Amino acid sequence: MLTGAVAGAGATGLGAVSAAALGAVDPRLAAAGQDSQRPGLRTEAFHGPRQAGVATLPQAFCVFIALNLHRDVDRDALRRLLRVLTDDAAALTQGTAPVNDQEPWLAQNPSRLTVTVGFGPRAMAVIDADRAPQWLKPLPAFTIDKLQDRWNQGDLLLQLCCDDKLTMAHAQRVLLKDVRSFATVRWVQDGFRNTVGATPDGQTTRNLFGQVDGTVNPYPGEADHEKVVYGQGGFTPWIENGTSVVIRRIHMNLDTWDEADTPAREDSVGRRLSNGAPLTGAAEHDEPDFEAKGPLGFPVISSYSHMRRSRSDNPDERIFRRVYNYDLAVSDASGHSRSGDVRGGVSNTGLIFASYQSDPVKQFVPIQRRLAQLDMLNTWTVPIGSAVFAIPPGCEVGGFIGDTLFT
Amino acid sequence: MLTGAVAGAGATGLGAVSAAALGAVDPRLAAAGQDSQRPGLRTEAFHGPRQAGVATLPQAFCVFIALNLHRDVDRDALRRLLRVLTDDAAALTQGTAPVNDQEPWLAQNPSRLTVTVGFGPRAMAVIDADRAPQWLKPLPAFTIDKLQDRWNQGDLLLQLCCDDKLTMAHAQRVLLKDVRSFATVRWVQDGFRNTVGATPDGQTTRNLFGQVDGTVNPYPGEADHEKVVYGQGGFTPWIENGTSVVIRRIHMNLDTWDEADTPAREDSVGRRLSNGAPLTGAAEHDEPDFEAKGPLGFPVISSYSHMRRSRSDNPDERIFRRVYNYDLAVSDASGHSRSGDVRGGVSNTGLIFASYQSDPVKQFVPIQRRLAQLDMLNTWTVPIGSAVFAIPPGCEVGGFIGDTLFT
Repeated sequence: MLTGAVAGAGATGLGAVSAAALGAVDPRLAAAGQDSQRPGLRTEAFHGPRQAGVATLPQAFCVFIALNLHRDVDRDALRRLLRVLTDDAAALTQGTAPVNDQEPWLAQNPSRLTVTVGFGPRAMAVIDADRAPQWLKPLPAFTIDKLQDRWNQGDLLLQLCCDDKLTMAHAQRVLLKDVRSFATVRWVQDGFRNTVGATPDGQTTRNLFGQVDGTVNPYPGEADHEKVVYGQGGFTPWIENGTSVVIRRIHMNLDTWDEADTPAREDSVGRRLSNGAPLTGAAEHDEPDFEAKGPLGFPVISSYSHMRRSRSDNPDERIFRRVYNYDLAVSDASGHSRSGDVRGGVSNTGLIFASYQSDPVKQFVPIQRRLAQLDMLNTWTVPIGSAVFAIPPGCEVGGFIGDTLFT
Repeated sequence: MLTGAVAGAGATGLGAVSAAALGAVDPRLAAAGQDSQRPGLRTEAFHGPRQAGVATLPQAFCVFIALNLHRDVDRDALRRLLRVLTDDAAALTQGTAPVNDQEPWLAQNPSRLTVTVGFGPRAMAVIDADRAPQWLKPLPAFTIDKLQDRWNQGDLLLQLCCDDKLTMAHAQRVLLKDVRSFATVRWVQDGFRNTVGATPDGQTTRNLFGQVDGTVNPYPGEADHEKVVYGQGGFTPWIENGTSVVIRRIHMNLDTWDEADTPAREDSVGRRLSNGAPLTGAAEHDEPDFEAKGPLGFPVISSYSHMRRSRSDNPDERIFRRVYNYDLAVSDASGHSRSGDVRGGVSNTGLIFASYQSDPVKQFVPIQRRLAQLDMLNTWTVPIGSAVFAIPPGCEVGGFIGDTLFT
């Protein structure tokens, strides 16, 4: 939902959080009884050719933090910052407190914590302007956008994902303390999905519109994942094992959505609400039939439906998404948490739509442009924030995130 | 932590979320394989002499919502509101979507959802002023308070707790839609603890100071729980099976806390940070020895420590707490989520301290007054919100929350 793409062959609901597929358990504890299997001990590897947090099976929580680098941060300072962020992230993700962590016990349940670092235009200019990817700039304006600067862009991105909110909050603080002398926080977008184990294995999660969200997505292990995310056989990556993330903040107007009945809602997406099946099929992963006509001769899946509009005949126009919900407090007393769009409503709700692709201009923009021109779902959704970051490769033990750009 | 009390005999770490102790699984699914045991299917009973959400083993998430009743809401209107809230809460907590739920699939994973209703002074005045408890009014001012009106009081309380944030967000919306014609939202306080399974069985959870928080607490099943919470053999309850909740919003200054070293931190509480043991003991649940002296003749547990100050020789001065953390975004760009206390810091963090007791004036106030006079922890904590609600009894099938007050 909120951006489909060309169907991958053999999609089997990998959008769901499957307990069986969740990360590693410390082998020292494997024989120590049931408690050793507790989700809190699960870890995701930090070191390797690629950063974690992209192909990682989505954790229950994710926070995206955009930073403004201080004016005087030069290449050496940024290198120092990346070194300390890397060292602390490497420790925290493995359940080890960094040396200077003053609440080390809060690091003991890593709960699949991942930390992913992204570079905005300013960071790349400081590191090596010549190696900055062409696409590393704000997306072109779309007609549907009502962007608020407080959710746009940034010099540096920290993406933390975790199955435990307390662990994530602690890791966030440790890393922001590292950052303090180098940068200020520009924005923080805090998101959630179902808790691990809440939904049945194999079922794609739903968003707060109630829609099955993430059916068609080139999941890791599927044929197109490498091409879409890392450019293998597709658009030349800006750097080997590097990718990009587009973070769109999409307000969902639950109050007007309430006024739409089930047929209108299903028509707007082209899928059944009950199980996410295309209106021409029976099960979530059935291939849609865009040629099928109803009794009056109109297409069963409308030409203005989100699913139809987000699909392209061009196989290059595909993205990989990892989407989180937000749901902020709305109160009359202060109004301090309202977005401009929800005054008078009872919800300030939406999606943090994180899209990963080798080249956002060639892969993300055409899809978004088509959706901006015509997509029935636009009736209830408004993009209110937009940011693009380059995701550098991972690093090996002893290295730091982005180190190859400093050579 | 942030309010101890007289030690219960035989406390055994019931503050921890034990996977084994978590709610019921639909018996129809008990034989259907591992997936049937998934946490999403666990339920807490709704109907009964007492409302759920008090003795319930704390869920991972809790949201407290204070409502302002519209000026024209009279006794009949409030009865209608309570009826519809009851019916929808009864359904949602059991994993059933209410009839008018437009996203019924989001109700399918109840994840131990509970809904608890509380009455502020205005609600009791509308229902039956003569039966309003004497203590149902704002707490007396404490010298340490820096209360912000946006976190104070309210006419009606909805407390939702759940192990899944998506399920809770949906239930919150369904109930706030019920409320729309009767009331507006005054404030929303959203809290979290560790996700189920993140921490070892039997370990009390920690707060964002890193402190083991909740060691001494008259948990359900312990000798004093009935007396403390429901007045059995203690202070006469305002109504049988009724209780009260005090909701204190306590800002925790992590930035100045960072400046305190481990001895200072341990001295401020009287417990070890590593495992929560009293400074005179070895394990979390060891009984503290307030008479023990160190080599220089000073008490090992300082007279100004939080644990010492929160204890009373008067066994009536006890409370039952169910505490959640908050950790809001701090950003330079907007400042929209800052509290007044955190400008310039990297965290807007604290506790939603929910305290349940038969009589808040006789049980909660003396403890809080003693802590306001002297408690080393006050160096780093500031109460910024305060509210008191009467919790009416539960209801049987066919009844509604508070129905006995309408007869």
